[in-house]
Amino acid sequence: MDLNADLGEGFGVWQLGDDEALLDLVTSANVACGFHAGDPVTMRRVCAAAAERRVAVGAQVGYRDLAGFGRRHIAYEFAELRDEVLYQLGALDAFCRAYRTRVRYLKPHGALYHAAARDETQAAAVVAAVNDYDPELPLLCLPGSVLAQLAQGAGLRVVAEGFADRNYLPNGQLVPRTSPDALVTDPHEVARRAVRMATEQTVVAIDGSVFPCVVDSICLHGDSPGAVAAAELVRAALIDAGATPTPFT
Amino acid sequence: MDLNADLGEGFGVWQLGDDEALLDLVTSANVACGFHAGDPVTMRRVCAAAAERRVAVGAQVGYRDLAGFGRRHIAYEFAELRDEVLYQLGALDAFCRAYRTRVRYLKPHGALYHAAARDETQAAAVVAAVNDYDPELPLLCLPGSVLAQLAQGAGLRVVAEGFADRNYLPNGQLVPRTSPDALVTDPHEVARRAVRMATEQTVVAIDGSVFPCVVDSICLHGDSPGAVAAAELVRAALIDAGATPTPFT
Amino acid sequence: MDLNADLGEGFGVWQLGDDEALLDLVTSANVACGFHAGDPVTMRRVCAAAAERRVAVGAQVGYRDLAGFGRRHIAYEFAELRDEVLYQLGALDAFCRAYRTRVRYLKPHGALYHAAARDETQAAAVVAAVNDYDPELPLLCLPGSVLAQLAQGAGLRVVAEGFADRNYLPNGQLVPRTSPDALVTDPHEVARRAVRMATEQTVVAIDGSVFPCVVDSICLHGDSPGAVAAAELVRAALIDAGATPTPFT
Amino acid sequence: MDLNADLGEGFGVWQLGDDEALLDLVTSANVACGFHAGDPVTMRRVCAAAAERRVAVGAQVGYRDLAGFGRRHIAYEFAELRDEVLYQLGALDAFCRAYRTRVRYLKPHGALYHAAARDETQAAAVVAAVNDYDPELPLLCLPGSVLAQLAQGAGLRVVAEGFADRNYLPNGQLVPRTSPDALVTDPHEVARRAVRMATEQTVVAIDGSVFPCVVDSICLHGDSPGAVAAAELVRAALIDAGATPTPFT
Repeated sequence: MDLNADLGEGFGVWQLGDDEALLDLVTSANVACGFHAGDPVTMRRVCAAAAERRVAVGAQVGYRDLAGFGRRHIAYEFAELRDEVLYQLGALDAFCRAYRTRVRYLKPHGALYHAAARDETQAAAVVAAVNDYDPELPLLCLPGSVLAQLAQGAGLRVVAEGFADRNYLPNGQLVPRTSPDALVTDPHEVARRAVRMATEQTVVAIDGSVFPCVVDSICLHGDSPGAVAAAELVRAALIDAGATPTPFT
Repeated sequence: MDLNADLGEGFGVWQLGDDEALLDLVTSANVACGFHAGDPVTMRRVCAAAAERRVAVGAQVGYRDLAGFGRRHIAYEFAELRDEVLYQLGALDAFCRAYRTRVRYLKPHGALYHAAARDETQAAAVVAAVNDYDPELPLLCLPGSVLAQLAQGAGLRVVAEGFADRNYLPNGQLVPRTSPDALVTDPHEVARRAVRMATEQTVVAIDGSVFPCVVDSICLHGDSPGAVAAAELVRAALIDAGATPTPFT
Repeated sequence: MDLNADLGEGFGVWQLGDDEALLDLVTSANVACGFHAGDPVTMRRVCAAAAERRVAVGAQVGYRDLAGFGRRHIAYEFAELRDEVLYQLGALDAFCRAYRTRVRYLKPHGALYHAAARDETQAAAVVAAVNDYDPELPLLCLPGSVLAQLAQGAGLRVVAEGFADRNYLPNGQLVPRTSPDALVTDPHEVARRAVRMATEQTVVAIDGSVFPCVVDSICLHGDSPGAVAAAELVRAALIDAGATPTPFT
Repeated sequence: MDLNADLGEGFGVWQLGDDEALLDLVTSANVACGFHAGDPVTMRRVCAAAAERRVAVGAQVGYRDLAGFGRRHIAYEFAELRDEVLYQLGALDAFCRAYRTRVRYLKPHGALYHAAARDETQAAAVVAAVNDYDPELPLLCLPGSVLAQLAQGAGLRVVAEGFADRNYLPNGQLVPRTSPDALVTDPHEVARRAVRMATEQTVVAIDGSVFPCVVDSICLHGDSPGAVAAAELVRAALIDAGATPTPFT
């Protein structure tokens, strides 16, 4: 099982999350590329630290919206979005190359993650950018999403992502963020759910039913208080259960 | 002799210069990378058109200053500038790769061009970025400048640039922009000076003296009225003189 | 009848439209405030020229999206949009005050214009910003829109805007931009429609039917080729018809 | 004695400093205006909280440089800087007006603070912006600086600022930041120095000599660890000494 988290999400003087601590826990680092967060100095620092620890670097691409942290939907046209994704990919890859490695995958961020899961235009733009850059580059995304479907249709590799700290509906979808039940807040419960995903490929839905959940990577959230401690619990539990985290790449 | 010009210097809805016309005249296109000008859609369009015409694409890197078009000096620290240059290089290269080519050289823009010609910190930052990205990548810059010296010291290839539409002092330096004599405005005279640079490797200075001027590329300015017509004259004159423009790469 | 047009829509080195020419024709200038277009130097220049000609200055507020010129819908939350509108209003007013005048009205730009016409959250944000700044400030907008309704409900003055160069549906709505019939392209026909709006308060719809169209201001588009000539025709026709343009303020 | 501190220096999702705590300690709040830090939602929040506590709001104007937090010198031309300062002033004032108050003074931030202290062009630009906006608006700045001199020459009110946590040279200038002795780090010593400034109008220089230091406001730094505790000490010491902090306005 792979563990991924969002890293490098500061900007200039502003910090967010504890990149150093998380890099010791994850196997895949989604590094912000400067459009919704991240700046070149931060990108270098995270890429260097990831290379040292053999953590895979992925392009955390997002909307051009520093003020909104990429969390507000923007009605991009296809070509604009495709080209902004391609731009971000190339920019991040330059830092990986400086440390003798490469961008290993792409994961959309925030509102783009959600839009690409549902909207054909935005999903197609992400797929086109990856195809332009490197058709071997995997896409880390929600299984069953529009993005996953278009990517598979285009011959790209899709890496399915699960959320141990989010509740699921019985139909396999996530409980919406707006619901009070969206999050699993007890870190021990999060760890148990991660182990279940890794060893049994199942999830217990909000109504108690169990359904299959075949994922290659579990997303850890890094920007909340207690995030690092929670991520340590998940990692330790996976190791105990014999599902030692390894990069999917 | 190579002919280079700045291209792709619009941003979003705003246009600047006539990219299509200039691409038929130059052999090297300095493409803006999004920090002082240029946007991803424009970068793709110029890279595609350049690839079609076998015009070499260079990274026209600049300060992060859209409002000032990169023309105002900014007192960057070494790491910030190095990483912003590296970021821009990678971003532009992504578009070249989409058209089965590569960034072929780097040329600093505006205030960075001038700062890197004199300031060791800024010149060293540009050199470090090129070294990180690809030590084979040539730097197009002013011969004798601090940037040229540091680049050569670091083992990078330096491509010397001349200005057929700028007057030179007897010591080989350019007449400052602030002087009324800075520019050669008669296009026929510009063409004659280009031919002299290409065939005799000399320039006539502002005082009438002639001195050696060994350059590999002549810079054409594209954003003034009449720029395209002037560039056509230069190109035709070079061909007539048997110095048909060819990329230095 | 008032004539309004979008002005000051350049950014830094990039120009758009012919501000000087349009200022001689309109009675109300919608001045871009720096978020989707416009920069402080341009804002001052336009405010100074407007003050000299006694043209009323309105705040052309838009999304924070220079790259998209404010034409892409952004899913702002209420408070973010309210505060960005208030920010832009204050910024523009500073330039008006420097020329002993004031911002006289507000008109949303681009995607915000369209969103505020339909979306309660975005319309309410615009209304709240105006209320915070100056409850006497009129809003220039589409009659019958959600923005017009909420503004009237909040006790603000609404100034109804008509489009002489857009075709209308028989129900009084504009033919969508995506339709080939959206625009009236013959400048003489545009002028005739403006005169009809001013003197008879009617419009001929796309199906030939005539319906009432009570507007206080007609919008002239300034950024297309021939825009100035077309605007001159409209102005001359209105004067001929005895409906000499005067500010609504 | 007035106590001022920089507030509202976050941007979007990114926070910096503890605005709420500092607002209970200072009498003047230098609120960032969105160019080097600050965003409209933050500006409103700080202006509202300041109005509630009767803390005076000043415009903390800076360079257009979010990536560099306004700490890098930018070689602005006069008109560009004047108009960007005026823009920021108006924008912040809109939020003050929403809470029935006004911007009470202006203080340049970071690299602009330092440039305006030495550079006539940049100082004159700041003075011109204040003059355009409101010639009654005081400027909070370094006594004896070029900015202070030009402002006084233009008839503006200058409010002299002192630094209790910075060491001074015997000539009355600050020990440069680059020196290891630049900062006074013991909070009790900082408090003692503040009391001396307030009650005796003197400072003990780095060589032990005592010289007059007539200041109207003491600057507290809010973005370091322990900043709030240190500010509490200063405030308490001033009250004990009978120099209860009051706004200079």
